Amino acid sequence: MIFAPRIQARLDALAAITAEPGTITRLYLTPEQARAEALVAGWMREAGMAVRYDAVGNLIGRIEGPEPGGPALVVGSHLDTVRNAGRYDGPLGVVTGIACVEALARDGIRLPHALEVVAFADEEGVRFSATLIGSRAFAGRLDPAVLDVADADGVTLAAAMRDYGLDPAAIASAARSPDAVLGYLELHIEQGPMLEKAGLPVGVVTAISGASRLDFTLTGEAGHAGTVAMSERRDALAGAADCVLAVEARCRGEAHLVGTVGRIHALPGAVNTIPGAVRFSLDLRAPDDGQRLAALADITAAVAVIAERRHLDLETRPLHEAAAIPCDPGLTDLVREAMAAEDLPVLALPSGAGHDGMAVAAIAPIAMIFVRCRGGISHNPAEFASLPDIETGARVLFGAIKGFAAARRGV
Amino acid sequence: MIFAPRIQARLDALAAITAEPGTITRLYLTPEQARAEALVAGWMREAGMAVRYDAVGNLIGRIEGPEPGGPALVVGSHLDTVRNAGRYDGPLGVVTGIACVEALARDGIRLPHALEVVAFADEEGVRFSATLIGSRAFAGRLDPAVLDVADADGVTLAAAMRDYGLDPAAIASAARSPDAVLGYLELHIEQGPMLEKAGLPVGVVTAISGASRLDFTLTGEAGHAGTVAMSERRDALAGAADCVLAVEARCRGEAHLVGTVGRIHALPGAVNTIPGAVRFSLDLRAPDDGQRLAALADITAAVAVIAERRHLDLETRPLHEAAAIPCDPGLTDLVREAMAAEDLPVLALPSGAGHDGMAVAAIAPIAMIFVRCRGGISHNPAEFASLPDIETGARVLFGAIKGFAAARRGV
Repeated sequence: MIFAPRIQARLDALAAITAEPGTITRLYLTPEQARAEALVAGWMREAGMAVRYDAVGNLIGRIEGPEPGGPALVVGSHLDTVRNAGRYDGPLGVVTGIACVEALARDGIRLPHALEVVAFADEEGVRFSATLIGSRAFAGRLDPAVLDVADADGVTLAAAMRDYGLDPAAIASAARSPDAVLGYLELHIEQGPMLEKAGLPVGVVTAISGASRLDFTLTGEAGHAGTVAMSERRDALAGAADCVLAVEARCRGEAHLVGTVGRIHALPGAVNTIPGAVRFSLDLRAPDDGQRLAALADITAAVAVIAERRHLDLETRPLHEAAAIPCDPGLTDLVREAMAAEDLPVLALPSGAGHDGMAVAAIAPIAMIFVRCRGGISHNPAEFASLPDIETGARVLFGAIKGFAAARRGV
Repeated sequence: MIFAPRIQARLDALAAITAEPGTITRLYLTPEQARAEALVAGWMREAGMAVRYDAVGNLIGRIEGPEPGGPALVVGSHLDTVRNAGRYDGPLGVVTGIACVEALARDGIRLPHALEVVAFADEEGVRFSATLIGSRAFAGRLDPAVLDVADADGVTLAAAMRDYGLDPAAIASAARSPDAVLGYLELHIEQGPMLEKAGLPVGVVTAISGASRLDFTLTGEAGHAGTVAMSERRDALAGAADCVLAVEARCRGEAHLVGTVGRIHALPGAVNTIPGAVRFSLDLRAPDDGQRLAALADITAAVAVIAERRHLDLETRPLHEAAAIPCDPGLTDLVREAMAAEDLPVLALPSGAGHDGMAVAAIAPIAMIFVRCRGGISHNPAEFASLPDIETGARVLFGAIKGFAAARRGV
């Protein structure tokens, strides 16, 4: 193994940087971000990269190509984490990118273009309830309104940036021109069980699924659990139960479509009271927007029928809507070829989770490599990817970078 | 109307005694209890009754029969309330009992036995999470262990009794001998919609339903809402939804059996996470214990099958189990006859809610009269019984008392 031991050692070193000892917790614009970026910046410099921070705190290491300041292939992921996170989600892509730069130097390979490794400063969005701040700013897609969003302590993003030493008025300067970014490659743990189930160490991502999130509220009539006959009830929880099963039934059996009711609140919530109102969420995702919107239409229609049949009032509140982001076929083919060169069967799968590539896709073609993680577990201290799988993932990323360069040389 | 206007005025006067202005909130062993009992004691004395307080603070008014200290027919209900209560639940039975005493005097009727009106001091059990403290002490069925139960402020029942001027060591002295109580009659609002649905002002209670309460916990596997295929999920909420519908299906269509899932908690409870564990309650009631236990067995079996089928772990925790309390056929016949004498169709229905009679039944035959309440709403400021319905209820109670006396004279 060439890549994996060093990658693992660096993941372990990053895992030690945390706001809460005993866990891994690194939020945006905190001392932990600064320490983690300083550590990674040191590795970048050792690898011969020029290092800079952009206006939102993304860390960017760069190897120039033959034309100084010319367009770059970008490899990256994020350094921030959820609270009590694992050590792979994000850092694996950054550290593996640096390892590829080291391998290029070791093998004496000079690329026909610049290569950048970006460590995005905020992907998870834990602190400001706004995800992808780093990559959205990088892509010039960060709405300045987000500067007014406050964290749990009431500190706005703008204030936190100033405290951190960043100028909120300068965020537009983080935006990269589409001309400057030739493509974006991200390696990430799968955060799901499909590779494990298929018995494969890596997979190539077809698209980042689009998502619809809604809150439904069914309102019936609260009543005494002992005195209201079953036939007289307008039980909001029984109605919600019908809806939960309708979501499951609609999504089952259709590949890559997933629907989840993750949150449910029954009011008043007493053991001896018929629930008068129930609020529940729906999270619906698919790599194809048509597939997702058809399912959404069917589910909202089913919920309406259930409400009608049970004489419940229905209120529907959209929370979030994001289109699917397809990966670039050309860049993805390079990943497939790198997998084939490693004698790996090519499993292509959508990403149900969001990634920095969603934002970067606005300015450049993207491709993603997934690495198997144990039990599909992520956002959890139990998150784990094996050394051999990391090695395989790094080899595929390295192969895709070399393949990209070869194709450019051929231009 | 003879009874109702005065009853209503007294209910209104009691409703003004509250711990929280703008609501009706009278908890056990509070200044509000003392003020309400003092007011009612005055009405009892005006009605010619001898008044005393027992060792747990129940207020007892008594008209002697021909034999001083002899056994009494007891009429009663409670003066304590839930928080933000209505004005009928409890006080209606007490005030109507006093009205009957007044009517006996007005009509020059001397009973062949003593008559007592009891205002129980605690039925709702809000303060000490232990219901029927008043009537259980009256029936000699109060476990002294309850003295150690603390309220939300950490004040034990024993300490609260001492603060109130009662001696916790003396609670056994509140117990009445079965020889001293000829029978117990309680008039109460229905707290359910059956009388309203039937278009009747009053009904006679067949039994106070028995109840089983349980908590079920289904444990599956939490996971990312976007990355785990439907076929790979062990979604605890989908399993709970199946269970909610199984409860409903089992109880539907069987008269007087009711089953309610009132409380549900999904963990971790995030919009983008598959619920890994769900805890939900079951409240199951029926006037017939065999009926209830058969349904309980079917439901627990159904829940186990659902858990098995969905590969969920199941934990079942019994919370509460109470046998049904049948009303006394002889005493109930007197109520039926009083209803018939008022040209009322006799609707006999079980009480799905608990009442003081449940405790008193341990020492005496009981019967209950239900008065229609609007929309079945209770434990709510919107609780309402109309003047004509109150009048009818009072006439039936008065008739039952006279019927009881007539039967005793015939002995």
